[in-house]
This record gives sequence, structure tokens and C-alpha cells, in this order.
Amino acid sequence: MNQRPSATGISYADAGVDSDRAESALAGLLTSVRPTFALRQGHGRPLLPIGAFANVLDLGDGKGLAISTDGVGTKALVAQMLGKYDTIGIDCVAMNANDIICVGAEPIAMTDYLAVAVPDAALFTEIGKGLLEGARQAEISIPGGEVAQIGEMIRGAEGGQAFDLVGTCVGTVPTDRILTGQDIRPGDVVLGLASSGVHSNGLSLAREAFFKRAGLKVTDMAPGLERTVGEELLEPTVIYVRFAMDALRSGIPVKAFVHVTSGGFLNLARVTAAVGFDIEALPEAPLVFRLIQEMGNVSDAEMFHVFNMGIGLCVVAPPESASPLRALAEKHGRHATVLGHATADAERVVRVLPVGLEGRGSRFIRAGSAGAKSV
Amino acid sequence: MNQRPSATGISYADAGVDSDRAESALAGLLTSVRPTFALRQGHGRPLLPIGAFANVLDLGDGKGLAISTDGVGTKALVAQMLGKYDTIGIDCVAMNANDIICVGAEPIAMTDYLAVAVPDAALFTEIGKGLLEGARQAEISIPGGEVAQIGEMIRGAEGGQAFDLVGTCVGTVPTDRILTGQDIRPGDVVLGLASSGVHSNGLSLAREAFFKRAGLKVTDMAPGLERTVGEELLEPTVIYVRFAMDALRSGIPVKAFVHVTSGGFLNLARVTAAVGFDIEALPEAPLVFRLIQEMGNVSDAEMFHVFNMGIGLCVVAPPESASPLRALAEKHGRHATVLGHATADAERVVRVLPVGLEGRGSRFIRAGSAGAKSV
Repeated sequence: MNQRPSATGISYADAGVDSDRAESALAGLLTSVRPTFALRQGHGRPLLPIGAFANVLDLGDGKGLAISTDGVGTKALVAQMLGKYDTIGIDCVAMNANDIICVGAEPIAMTDYLAVAVPDAALFTEIGKGLLEGARQAEISIPGGEVAQIGEMIRGAEGGQAFDLVGTCVGTVPTDRILTGQDIRPGDVVLGLASSGVHSNGLSLAREAFFKRAGLKVTDMAPGLERTVGEELLEPTVIYVRFAMDALRSGIPVKAFVHVTSGGFLNLARVTAAVGFDIEALPEAPLVFRLIQEMGNVSDAEMFHVFNMGIGLCVVAPPESASPLRALAEKHGRHATVLGHATADAERVVRVLPVGLEGRGSRFIRAGSAGAKSV
Repeated sequence: MNQRPSATGISYADAGVDSDRAESALAGLLTSVRPTFALRQGHGRPLLPIGAFANVLDLGDGKGLAISTDGVGTKALVAQMLGKYDTIGIDCVAMNANDIICVGAEPIAMTDYLAVAVPDAALFTEIGKGLLEGARQAEISIPGGEVAQIGEMIRGAEGGQAFDLVGTCVGTVPTDRILTGQDIRPGDVVLGLASSGVHSNGLSLAREAFFKRAGLKVTDMAPGLERTVGEELLEPTVIYVRFAMDALRSGIPVKAFVHVTSGGFLNLARVTAAVGFDIEALPEAPLVFRLIQEMGNVSDAEMFHVFNMGIGLCVVAPPESASPLRALAEKHGRHATVLGHATADAERVVRVLPVGLEGRGSRFIRAGSAGAKSV
């Protein structure tokens, strides 16, 4: 996985996702969203800032309500290309419930928003199956939702059934047990739990690489994999809820759960303690990532920024927790490895040493290089 | 507003929203969603069935959490046609917060989901303004949200900025004060609070009538109105939160709040008491509805099924509450009128007597006519 900074290498922006532009636009939105925090000073007050994996609302009597919203993004297009709709609901639950555990909360429910061009019983039934399976794995209910028939606003993959699928998950956490990595100290270890593949991030780049650059079809066998490209990309996102709840209940000291989504290991820098992180050892990235990188001629920096690279959840904990947490992860069917540790770095740099990357803010750059835009 | 059942009259289905088909498809989704209720039997248990305006989760110690999800639908297209994005956020808050009050809960927060083709700072800033104004009116925070850049999945009005905007609102209610109309008795009155226009329902039909049938442009003056068609359709949805909270705190007996959205007065039949409703007196429908009906040659049954027809919120209360509730509504700047009363009817028929309609389940039909599909 060497960096290949060639003129033909593709980036997330080339694939239709311009993170820099999105961040700039987001600033405009936040100008108005931030002042809403002052609108609830007592009951219901948001306890965390914008940018946490989930916020927590103060319900009084020491009770906190965690809330987070996320969608499945263009993984919906892969489902459409394959005509397979029975697992995308798992992704929807996963993307949301995995965020809820990252504030130390127990997910209890998720509402779903399903936007379609044409309401189709077969499509809805299949999507429902995934939602139910996701709900089972996350041990939540789906107490309500919304179906929007907005044919003029939505479009899909050719020949597929256009839809968008979004969830909002809520969970509960005692306000004195909100976990945001506030107690992380240099030397605490970073444990990484295996992902099942691309999860629900970076699908635009993956599709660009497989389908546009390499010219593969969704039904083509993925080179070196024992299934089609579509099946590989559609592999459901792992739901880490049971593991995380078990970890919290077990009493094994844990300082942070970090859902590895867009931004990859830079998500580690979202912990509230002013520390950096060194990732010193990485399991070999699953083949799907190597294929994407090769077919799309994608740089390491872009790969590590866009994809989870094989690690779907990081746990930051005191060194002595590493062994019992690994055992617990294995019990839940997830391989876990010690990836590195927290460092004394108030600038919160995340270094991925095996590939010579370091990240600040929202960007990875080659270690030692400079560039205002990238920092 | 006579019914004009001509061959050229348009229906919601003609306008791209097939309610019958949507219901059939929804059944497929609910097959999987309903079993999720059993996944949370203790903490977090959903206390209401699917179909309530919002569900309420049991948080223990008598605390309930109301949750509801809704989007702005194709009102987003009107915003795009007009290039005016600073009020659609109000609609997003309104559609959600108004549902939360219908279980007797106090809205505390809403997360937003903003899907765009291209993240644009100006667009986001304007949308944020509406969200902030909506949050002010509903007295909630927006503690988090999600921006999705999904250009391949979303499309917009010609020349406009494609986006979809969805919210999930949460609120709190003591579990022994959940209000679902369970205590409504025949003779209780239905008070109607004025809407500001079409709110966020039926925009597909309204656009069909104005822009396709009548050939008007969004910037054309609406006949008889002192502003353009686009401005009229984009008028923000009324947020009834302060009125409802004032009513609950005042001690004036209230038996149900009913948000008049898709389905119109049929939303009255969503109360849990097995009663029917007679709407006996209606304020004249605002001009916008008369224009839509005339330009689209739309039947009364379809109009009353798709639009709020001038009433955005119904309050069901004992007769002696009517006068103080009207005064309270006026104090909050909303005209309110007594529309009718609850009837002893276990079949839950909603009759709109001024226009000779009666509705059961999800459909209005001409009083006296039959038809299995419509019943």
C-alpha cells in the first residue's frame, strides 16, 4: 500500500464527495445550529458540543439521553445495483447505534426515514428485514418512522429502486457516566475491533474504483474474493453494541469507544482529552481495500481518510484492559488487536506509522510534508 | 368547493404520490418493524403502537421519551424553484415538533438530516436560518445532525439546489400524562387552529395544479393573493408548540392535540378513544386551497384528504374548554374556531358535513357512496 500520487489517482472529491467543500458548507449550517443550544438551558440541555459522536440531553435526575442521526449514504446504490435490499437496514442501525455507544450510552430505539421514488411492497419488505436484524443485534426497538414518496427528489442506480435510508438512534446514559474519552492519558492503549469490510463509508470512492475505473460489474467476482464485488461492498456493517455494553457492564476500565467512520483513525481525535494517538501496528488491510486502492490508484492518505481499513471500532483503555477487552471482543465474534497508544500531544495528531501518515483536524498528510490546506 | 369528478381532475396519485400503494408497501415494512417492539421489554419499551403521532419510550421512574421523524417532502422543490432557502428549516421543525405535542410531550430537541447533491455554504447558511427560527419557536435545541453528500441519489428542481431535509424530534412526557385522546367522550368539542397555508403536506398536488395544469411560474403572482405562487406555497408551517404547552400548563382540560397533516381531518381518527367526529362548521378555506382545487380540478374528497384546508391543529376538549382554549390560541396569534364534536361511533367515522364527506380508515368518500377500496 504505497502512496501513488499519480495524476490519474482518484480522490473522494473525484468520486463526488468533496470533504473540504462539505466542511466549509457545514460551517454555514453550524452558524445557526450552535445558537440553538442556548434555547434549552434547563431540562433537555445538550451536554456535549457539536462534533461528538452523539449528543447527550440532560433529562434531569442524573439521566441523559443520547441522540444521533446517520444514513447509509450511497451504499443504497450498491443495494440497488445488486437488487438486494435485505441487509441495508442493518447498516442503517449500525451507523447510528455504533455512534450512540461512543458516548457510553445504551441504545434503546431508532426511528427510520425511508425516502423512495415509488413505494414498492417487495422493496419495503426487504428493507424491513434488515432493519429488524439490525434492531435484534443492537437490542433496540424501531418505535416509528417515516416513509416519504418523493420521486422528483430522489434517484437511484440504473434499473434499481431509488431509495434513501436514514436513522436516528436514541440511548440512555447516566450523566455522570458519559464517556467521551475525557480521562484518556498518554500510554493508554488503542484496541481495534475488526470491521466486516467497507461498512457504510467511502462507497462513492469504492464504486468509482470498481465500476468506473476497473470497469467491473456489480455481479463480477471480485479478484481474490469468493464473492461478487456487489456482495463484498454490501456486506453489512458490524454492530458493536453488545460488545460495548458487555464491556461497560463487566467493569473492565474503558476510556473511549471510537466508531471508525468517515475520517478513519482521525475519529480518535474526537475524544475530549487533549492527547494524540500513535497507531503502530495494523493488521493487514482486508483485500477489498487493497483492490480499491489498486483499481482507483488511490493514495494511502485518501484511503485512510475515507475507509476504516479493517478496523470498525477502536477502544481506548488502560494497558491492563487490553487483554480482557480482546477476549471480550473475541467472545462477540470480533477479532481485536492492539493498534497503538495515546500520546502526550496537545495538538491531537494521529499518526499512522505503518504507512507514514499523520493527521490533524480532518486531514491526513504524509508525515513531514506541509500544506496549509491539508493541515 | 363542489366536487368535480371529471376525467381530467387530478389526484394525489397523478401528482406522484400514490397513497394506496404507499400503504400497501408500508404493510411490508411494518411486518418487520412491529416485531422490534418485543426487543425492548423493559427500559426503553415503546408505550404506543405504530401509527401514533409519536411514540413514547418508557425511561423508568415515570419518565417517557416521545420521538417522531418527518421530512419536508417536496416543499424542498418549491424552495429550490424560488431559490429561497431560509424558511424550509422552520417547516422541518414544525412537522416534527407538532407531532411531539400530539402525545402530550414537550419537545426538547431535534436532529436534522440534510442530504445534498453539492454542499454549498450559501444553501447551508440559509437552511440553518430556518432551523434556528424553528428551534426558537419550538423552544428546542438542535444538538446534532447529519449532512450527506449523495449527488447520485438526489435530484432537485431545475436550476435549484437539490436537497432533502428531515428531522427527528424528541420530547418528554410523564408516562401517566401521555395524551392520545384516550378520554375523549361523545360531545367533546373539536377546536381548529388556523394553518398558515399548505404547511408541508400536499405540495406534490399543489405543484401539479399550479405549475403543470395552470402553467404558472413560481414567480407569477397567485390570482387574488398579494404574493407569488412560490411565496404562498413556501409559507412556513405554523409551530403550535408554545400554544400546546401553555394549554397543558394552564390546567384547561384538553383531551387530544391532533396535527392535521397528510389525511387532513382523518387524523382525528388517530385518537385512541373509539369515537367518531362530526365537523359541522368550517371557516372558509384559504384562497390557496381554492386555487389548487380549481386549477387542478381536484375533488373535495381529494382536497380534504391531501390538505389541511386551513386548519393546522385540532384540539379535542370538553365543551367548557372551548372558550379558554380559543382565547389562548388568539394570545398565540392563531385564530381558532369550534369545528364540531366527537360522536358515539365505534367505527370512528369522520364526517365533514359542510362538504358532504365521510372518512373511515385512510380515505374520504362521498357520504352515502360505497366502495371497498375507499373504505
